[in-house]
Amino acid sequence: MTAAGDLAAVYRAYIACLNRQDWASLAHFVHDEVRHNGRPFGLAGYRQMLEQDFREIPDLRFDIELMICDPPHIACRLAFDCTPKGRFLGLEVNGKRVSFAENVFYKFRCEKIEQVWSIIDKTVIEVQLQSS
Amino acid sequence: MTAAGDLAAVYRAYIACLNRQDWASLAHFVHDEVRHNGRPFGLAGYRQMLEQDFREIPDLRFDIELMICDPPHIACRLAFDCTPKGRFLGLEVNGKRVSFAENVFYKFRCEKIEQVWSIIDKTVIEVQLQSS
Repeated sequence: MTAAGDLAAVYRAYIACLNRQDWASLAHFVHDEVRHNGRPFGLAGYRQMLEQDFREIPDLRFDIELMICDPPHIACRLAFDCTPKGRFLGLEVNGKRVSFAENVFYKFRCEKIEQVWSIIDKTVIEVQLQSS
Repeated sequence: MTAAGDLAAVYRAYIACLNRQDWASLAHFVHDEVRHNGRPFGLAGYRQMLEQDFREIPDLRFDIELMICDPPHIACRLAFDCTPKGRFLGLEVNGKRVSFAENVFYKFRCEKIEQVWSIIDKTVIEVQLQSS
């Protein structure tokens, strides 16, 4: 079993990999058969999801607000402050700047992400769009 | 510092307290100055929120799907399968049965919940309402 400090370091390196958009390194952190919210994406599908996120949100950046590590699991609250170009989560954001959080759980196998359960705070974005 | 196993037991007892709607015992688990998604609810406001949840969702039940414990924090994925009577999260649920998750983080102080950061999966409810 990987120690908590080691797994937290792996996770921070994964987030840095995303922020560099270093897709060639993604396989160091993500399992070939990764599942995301129950969907069997696999590594290729997972990479496609992330590449699409960056196309739709060019200033996307992942910031760790709170990390809870209990191997083989990590839970993280990620903070975003960014500008989706068009629709996002079914909402007409269209270039407005929005701030929101994602509460996400990961299960690791051999220090690679094998399962992800993610929820993005859609309600807080709706409130920002209504008041803008 | 409370050990991880002890804090997990406290959390399970808190969830059992909610499912019993045992509001007189809530103070054993929730700090007087609790904050929920940044709002300074305090114990009385926190109890009001929960009582309102049960009024609006009479068959509400909290089920722990995944718990990650790293004192003083706990992260939990809660599963719900219930029947909100009217509007829920701004959606016209109106007595339809819906299944959804909540990814929630807690910070404890002296074995009592002091801060909560919660996100409910609104998107998955929208999909269920559209397909029903």
